[in-house]
Amino acid sequence: MRNVYHDELVHLVDTLVEMTNLARSAMARATTALLDADREIAESVITADERIDSLQRDLEERSLQLLARQQPVATDLRVVVTALRMSTSLERMGDLARHVAKLARLRHPQEVVPAEYRATILQMAQVAERIVTKAGSVIASRDVAMAAQLETDDDEMDVLHRSVFEQLMQHSGEHSTEVAVDLTLCSRYYERFADHAVSVAKNVVFLVTGSHDPEETHGHSLVG
Amino acid sequence: MRNVYHDELVHLVDTLVEMTNLARSAMARATTALLDADREIAESVITADERIDSLQRDLEERSLQLLARQQPVATDLRVVVTALRMSTSLERMGDLARHVAKLARLRHPQEVVPAEYRATILQMAQVAERIVTKAGSVIASRDVAMAAQLETDDDEMDVLHRSVFEQLMQHSGEHSTEVAVDLTLCSRYYERFADHAVSVAKNVVFLVTGSHDPEETHGHSLVG
Repeated sequence: MRNVYHDELVHLVDTLVEMTNLARSAMARATTALLDADREIAESVITADERIDSLQRDLEERSLQLLARQQPVATDLRVVVTALRMSTSLERMGDLARHVAKLARLRHPQEVVPAEYRATILQMAQVAERIVTKAGSVIASRDVAMAAQLETDDDEMDVLHRSVFEQLMQHSGEHSTEVAVDLTLCSRYYERFADHAVSVAKNVVFLVTGSHDPEETHGHSLVG
Repeated sequence: MRNVYHDELVHLVDTLVEMTNLARSAMARATTALLDADREIAESVITADERIDSLQRDLEERSLQLLARQQPVATDLRVVVTALRMSTSLERMGDLARHVAKLARLRHPQEVVPAEYRATILQMAQVAERIVTKAGSVIASRDVAMAAQLETDDDEMDVLHRSVFEQLMQHSGEHSTEVAVDLTLCSRYYERFADHAVSVAKNVVFLVTGSHDPEETHGHSLVG
């Protein structure tokens, strides 16, 4: 029985890693849809989001069953509770990628991002891809040091997010209100995507250290 | 021992209701700060958010202890797991109120919302206040019928959110990029606030019916 239990915990972790892969792929493809004004890719991102949603529902159900049947304590209990939390963040990251894709679809065949903003948006997309990839590694490796790196990536994202606004203000009058609205939303989607990745990493830190304070980092095994 | 346990479950529910009150008050005050360009109220909202955050941390800790010590099953287990989820949404609603207050502080003494948008933003604020108040009632009463009402309020919010964009497009050129950016963010904050309230209500439906499908509604007691 304990073996089934152990497998179930490993399965939770595998599902979370798979969700980070799907969220990464969704945001990368949404960025392509956005920057290439590619409607087909936009549609595929919107459709594919259902897969992340269903993984989350599945993880939730399995977690509840685990809690009810196995009544885990200590670290195992934290694995299940943090898995539930992380899955919520990852599901939300999928939604944000879908929002980017919807923006591309809404304006198609028009471009959402004017030429002078493409470099910034691309950088945001690259940070987003990097941060979610690291979140996946952190879940798989329980690497608390790497978890701290995500904060640095997130700072970079915040700087880019602010720079979109600054650029918009500087060139006020040179572009339509539609462009300003679209870029504001778009930039916010990438920024929130990164926030959720940080939240995922923080949950792993909590899991490993038993503390929300990143200073107290003494190692525990994720899956007992 | 079972009495302490029962009290703990009731305490979780009370904390959630208190969090809805704090989120409601925060958004109402943030709206005042926004529409009256009142810097002091804006500051007070920003400071008060710590209270919601600390309630969430507290609820989380107590939930984990409950799961570990009492090993609840069936409905009680769902109470704890959904309480964790609802507390995340409510904490986020506090953040969104803080974002509105920060926008008011950033532009002070300038107004964020031009005269022609005040009515729409006020309506969004009123829907936000109504929906979070209902979320509190739904948590306290386990009223699945009232939970369904929140979806209608959320639809109203979505219509208002879209109308802000439509108004911005129609009057493109009449206002600065700053106004367009601020209104886009502001409108999104209210809209997300409502989304989270709906999510809270859906968790209560799940709790009562054991299903994410709102059609299957057969009554269970929230606190066993």
